[in-house]
Amino acid sequence: MNRFSFNQITAKHWALTDLVKGCVDAGVDKVALWREPVTEYGLDRSAALVRDAGLSVTTLCRSGFFQAPDWFDDNRRAIDEAAALDTKVLVLVSGGLPEGSKDIAGARAHVADAIAQLVPHAAAAGVTLAIEPLHPMYAADRCVINTWDQALSIAEQHPVGQVGVTVDTYHLWWDDTVLGKIERAGDRIAIYQLADWITPLPAGVLTGRGLPGDGCVDMRAFHQAVAKAGYTGPIEVEVMNEELWQRPGPEILAATIAGYRSI
Amino acid sequence: MNRFSFNQITAKHWALTDLVKGCVDAGVDKVALWREPVTEYGLDRSAALVRDAGLSVTTLCRSGFFQAPDWFDDNRRAIDEAAALDTKVLVLVSGGLPEGSKDIAGARAHVADAIAQLVPHAAAAGVTLAIEPLHPMYAADRCVINTWDQALSIAEQHPVGQVGVTVDTYHLWWDDTVLGKIERAGDRIAIYQLADWITPLPAGVLTGRGLPGDGCVDMRAFHQAVAKAGYTGPIEVEVMNEELWQRPGPEILAATIAGYRSI
Repeated sequence: MNRFSFNQITAKHWALTDLVKGCVDAGVDKVALWREPVTEYGLDRSAALVRDAGLSVTTLCRSGFFQAPDWFDDNRRAIDEAAALDTKVLVLVSGGLPEGSKDIAGARAHVADAIAQLVPHAAAAGVTLAIEPLHPMYAADRCVINTWDQALSIAEQHPVGQVGVTVDTYHLWWDDTVLGKIERAGDRIAIYQLADWITPLPAGVLTGRGLPGDGCVDMRAFHQAVAKAGYTGPIEVEVMNEELWQRPGPEILAATIAGYRSI
Repeated sequence: MNRFSFNQITAKHWALTDLVKGCVDAGVDKVALWREPVTEYGLDRSAALVRDAGLSVTTLCRSGFFQAPDWFDDNRRAIDEAAALDTKVLVLVSGGLPEGSKDIAGARAHVADAIAQLVPHAAAAGVTLAIEPLHPMYAADRCVINTWDQALSIAEQHPVGQVGVTVDTYHLWWDDTVLGKIERAGDRIAIYQLADWITPLPAGVLTGRGLPGDGCVDMRAFHQAVAKAGYTGPIEVEVMNEELWQRPGPEILAATIAGYRSI
């Protein structure tokens, strides 16, 4: 349990103050926060809340969305927010295709260029940009970076510690080549996140993920690969699931811990 | 239009006799048929119907589903059905994980083994087995073969003409490496199918595909890649879309032809 981190989106409707208290009560000392609820509660207040509770913030989720017109300013703000929360890792979801575009190669090139433009600010703030490859079913409308190779090839254009890759079991499990590549990724692994694959997928395919152990992902194989890479950092459970979200926060946290322990 | 083939599933509710007449009326001389409606109408009757109408059958869709207990017998029957329809190509959808399994590598190895067991019967019947890599979002419950590389590596264990690969734009478009690989695939391309990617995806993610030109797939890039590979065979439009299916068959065919022509 000393590596477990509770990702806030797993209990989307749990108020931040309650979530912090719930984690402390459950003996959980790491959380991953999302920008929207942090902004809603107030950045400085959020930072003080988690710090005073003795929690560390493993990642701030999430920035990126590089097809948006204000991507540069918004991502610099996100880096500042991560630094204010004393978070070392900012997760980047790269955004989909521009409206009406069929040029996915162009969108991908833009992502690499945008990240390069953000690296100086992130490095100065001591924040690692953690590119997250999202499942290919999100390629059109959410994230044009869809494989380990794509994310790593962008990260490797920059020093270790400035740009890394997010390992999320939900997005990568289908790839028959990914475990070996993760093993060889060394300190490019910026964060390790767990969610399980369950079917059928819901409309929009965003909120039908499973707690670890509830689906068909071989989590032990991922654990071994990440361990072989030398990654010893936090392990977040990040599950978006409409039914799970309807349950009370403490129940969600307990179910999440149980799922984490089961695998 | 001389390469266009109308895939029956695009007008799922159009009776086979009406579909055949509709294609003749529209000047379409190629169709792809599905096993269920062919069985329903009768195999020999179906074969006579299309032959007498002067239509050729570009593929029979589909067999595979190698996790089913009766996969061997069922696939041999499918090969016989393809031969009876004078179809040279049988499309294989490999099936998902066995119930409760987390062993996707094992499921993939079984697919390769199963295809090897079917090749002698297919070769004797003069039918090419066309492995179709399905989008990774189907990896758990429909098809564990999800990339061009996986399909090609199985096909290459057998002579050209006995096992090939299905190029379907819907399943492959997200892959940043696929166009170059298709260019180099030569006569391993058994059939070329078009569907476009539109969002949001519906629940179950099966029936939300777009007619060519309606989505974000760069069809011209696929055409170039397939042409560079030397493929000069039929081009099927195969679109599963719940809204499209509600329209009268002749309208669907007209819209399909218009989409095909637009790209």
